[in-house]
Amino acid sequence: MASANRRPASVRGVERLTGRPEWSLLTASRSPQTLAEMFATDPGRAQRFSLTAGDLLVDYSKQLVNDQTMAALVALADAVGVERRRDEMFDGAPINVTEQRAVLHTALRAPPQETITVDGVDIVAEVHAVLTAMSAFAEDVRVTARFRSIVNIGIGGSDLGPAMATEALWACADHALDVSFVSNVDGADIARVLERCDPASTLFIVSSKTFTTIETMTNARTARDWLVDALGTEAVADHFVAVSTNLDAVRAFGIHTVFGFWDWVGGRYSLASSIGLSLMIAIGADNFAAMLQGMRVIDDHFRTEPLVRNVPVILGMIGIWNTSVLGAPTKAVIPYARELARFPAYLQQLDMESNGKMVRLDGTDVEVATGPIIWGEPGTNGQHAFFQLLHQGTHLVPVDLIGFARPNHNLAGHHDLLFANLLAQAQALAFGRTDSPSPHRSFPGNRPSTIIVAERLTPSTLGQLIALYEHIVFVQGVVWGINSFDQWGVELGKQLAQTIAAELTGDHRSGSHDASTSALIDWYRSRRVGHR
Amino acid sequence: MASANRRPASVRGVERLTGRPEWSLLTASRSPQTLAEMFATDPGRAQRFSLTAGDLLVDYSKQLVNDQTMAALVALADAVGVERRRDEMFDGAPINVTEQRAVLHTALRAPPQETITVDGVDIVAEVHAVLTAMSAFAEDVRVTARFRSIVNIGIGGSDLGPAMATEALWACADHALDVSFVSNVDGADIARVLERCDPASTLFIVSSKTFTTIETMTNARTARDWLVDALGTEAVADHFVAVSTNLDAVRAFGIHTVFGFWDWVGGRYSLASSIGLSLMIAIGADNFAAMLQGMRVIDDHFRTEPLVRNVPVILGMIGIWNTSVLGAPTKAVIPYARELARFPAYLQQLDMESNGKMVRLDGTDVEVATGPIIWGEPGTNGQHAFFQLLHQGTHLVPVDLIGFARPNHNLAGHHDLLFANLLAQAQALAFGRTDSPSPHRSFPGNRPSTIIVAERLTPSTLGQLIALYEHIVFVQGVVWGINSFDQWGVELGKQLAQTIAAELTGDHRSGSHDASTSALIDWYRSRRVGHR
Repeated sequence: MASANRRPASVRGVERLTGRPEWSLLTASRSPQTLAEMFATDPGRAQRFSLTAGDLLVDYSKQLVNDQTMAALVALADAVGVERRRDEMFDGAPINVTEQRAVLHTALRAPPQETITVDGVDIVAEVHAVLTAMSAFAEDVRVTARFRSIVNIGIGGSDLGPAMATEALWACADHALDVSFVSNVDGADIARVLERCDPASTLFIVSSKTFTTIETMTNARTARDWLVDALGTEAVADHFVAVSTNLDAVRAFGIHTVFGFWDWVGGRYSLASSIGLSLMIAIGADNFAAMLQGMRVIDDHFRTEPLVRNVPVILGMIGIWNTSVLGAPTKAVIPYARELARFPAYLQQLDMESNGKMVRLDGTDVEVATGPIIWGEPGTNGQHAFFQLLHQGTHLVPVDLIGFARPNHNLAGHHDLLFANLLAQAQALAFGRTDSPSPHRSFPGNRPSTIIVAERLTPSTLGQLIALYEHIVFVQGVVWGINSFDQWGVELGKQLAQTIAAELTGDHRSGSHDASTSALIDWYRSRRVGHR
Repeated sequence: MASANRRPASVRGVERLTGRPEWSLLTASRSPQTLAEMFATDPGRAQRFSLTAGDLLVDYSKQLVNDQTMAALVALADAVGVERRRDEMFDGAPINVTEQRAVLHTALRAPPQETITVDGVDIVAEVHAVLTAMSAFAEDVRVTARFRSIVNIGIGGSDLGPAMATEALWACADHALDVSFVSNVDGADIARVLERCDPASTLFIVSSKTFTTIETMTNARTARDWLVDALGTEAVADHFVAVSTNLDAVRAFGIHTVFGFWDWVGGRYSLASSIGLSLMIAIGADNFAAMLQGMRVIDDHFRTEPLVRNVPVILGMIGIWNTSVLGAPTKAVIPYARELARFPAYLQQLDMESNGKMVRLDGTDVEVATGPIIWGEPGTNGQHAFFQLLHQGTHLVPVDLIGFARPNHNLAGHHDLLFANLLAQAQALAFGRTDSPSPHRSFPGNRPSTIIVAERLTPSTLGQLIALYEHIVFVQGVVWGINSFDQWGVELGKQLAQTIAAELTGDHRSGSHDASTSALIDWYRSRRVGHR
């Protein structure tokens, strides 16, 4: 394991993972057999190691696991209390302990007849009230066609979810609307978008829970200046809406229309909330509701299926096996669907911001590797870029391959080839080819993958995929004993950036930096625009 | 080290890396000091560990190296013959031994007065003849404005380079032209592009060296059908050009205008060739020439600077240190420039397809970890997604941070903040914060990064960055003793895909698959479009 963890593991409080008997069973299960040998000697393997959840078929038979491994993984999930923690999450217990909050993104897709109470308030009713307001607004925008350009301004969870899903569901979007996403504080981002917008027909959605996120507010001010230059101050109220909980700041900005959300929704889990407004405008309220319904299908599966058939649990535990036992530091996610081009980037935040942690709930250090590095590009493109390394490199890279039986277009000759490539890559990774006369043309094989397929990419199956990965991340966080729902790791850089920004432009120099940072501040000051 | 390398290391032929005395010096140099301690005790560190190459300033002082490490790395580069191999490459020796070819992407940017002879032919004259033809064609397209949409059809090296650079140089592109890139065999890719094109004003560039790449030819046929439906067969010659070496296949397709290239250019090194035609149309011939000039600046630096001041050598050797000694399996590349959004994806192919290998030139296995997994997203976006893991996760992730002193837009209030974030992240990674009362809010620091900055992102500095990374990859390939210029690892999947594609649609079943692949073929056949 490549580890940057420099502090000694400790055992106060939470039971040590590696001290559990199930952990010993797990590490002892490591098979001397290759995948080729396991498939050859076990005709039932593919069927036994395939499961369904909702409309998703999941085949994990090409993972480096055997029956002992799977039994130990399920026993470990049981021992660490995955089911109890899961129930606490769904019930609204404050499982985000470092911020003392409930974690209720699942309430965002709860049916209206359900009741979930937080601090004495039925939040399901609140959720549906906001959904109703969003739907009315979105449908009005779609029907009246008063806007041609919709610009979502937000970053992180206020960007990646709606941007990913709007591209994913392109086939059911209103193509007369140009829906763009501005996120980076780099002015090149918003400049590129504003160039193709007409102020009179542009709607800005400013998404920031606190309405203080510096990147988002910088972009929002630039957008407002651009609009006011063309249409005057009085146009702001008609051309801006906000998604925020800070009503005072929103009004001070000049925005009258606000869609709320709640403390118990983390940014990276917020697509189903009003953060999804830009997506809802693109695809319509019915399609948005279908996505929520798809999420709910997997929520119900996760809540009710026994561990051995519970897909988020099984895939989550296989991730523990790959990351913490086999030592694979990354996971590649390869969607064989061009529309899912940004799904890996979305999962980067979901997974790495949740589980990229080294401190357990009790404040002691984890003693194994945690959250993997998520990366990937769509197939077949990845095959022509980095698959060389997957097949013949020295790093163990588990791969998730995602595909669909039917396309969302009617061009002939494309889709069978696309799906054939998905299957071929899994086969090549698993079984390789060792009969080549040249070592340069040999493939060692025995490289693990999971195949996730559905009949078609729809709002519902996209929702199912999202909820599946959310719950995989949850399961792994429970096993590692970490809090998947805070993100203290982003604080230090934010603070330092404010100090340095002042020094890049003003007269004050703190003098407290290392010599490298100081030299680069000087370099910048002497070259920046405005330097005399 | 997480290793999928299952075959024993062997010592026939090429000298073993780990047996060299320089390797022992290297591993012995590992410092007990943290970065904070090294900076505190060594006021000259930042200056000593910064270098320039062309317009690039490179500060590697926040890498986990000391003077002993750097001396051992330079000695190792010397011992393995980096300079000799470099000179062989520039001189056209057939260093791609498994394919018996020269490796001469550097000839693509050689000045016209230079002479490089391959098989008795002066290839520099050929290069400039093609550049002249490309320039005439590109300028004609730009001046006559007979096309509004330019669609590049290609995949891998025929896509990532021009797509990345067209976005990177957006500020100097002709925005009246819509330049799109179709690569994926997934029909959703070309469907999305054709929807916004008008046949009468669309130019297709079909880029495939062999003109047989299945993804590219599938998309090219769909594009031709679409054009012929609207304008008739006779329009093909006017609306399609090709970049290929297979003239017969190009003519059979109906294309008359072809731009050639050569066997000694690998796909992932081909942006400076006619593969860059779409980019040249977007930015103009002069800007394209400026990019080539930028590449040449770094080529000259790489060729002439002594090892200790040779930036590609120094950064390449630091990569060896991180990957093969410290065991970091990945490298994150974070451009603080929205225009470089696809630079990490471009580098994925450049690096991972070149050095994702486990067999040395003599056919024996490498005994250390080779080419890292490259990944990344632009800052500041990555900060709101995965930086949590960089700061507080358990994996050691070296980071390259790339930035510029001046933006290519004139919006106020954005750029200083952007650059401040770059510096802040490097500082936070290196020095952390250990005085927090809560372990959840502590940052261990000591996480390595390199900062690469230039005054501005221009065609020239983009060319410099590309050539820098090309030569870094080269240096590492020499040290590992592998062939960075073949890609046999992509062959097996291609072959299997053809077999499986026939089985997804036809009556013939090979019956030779593993049970998992067979079951998924059945699943697909019963659901695919056209299934009765």
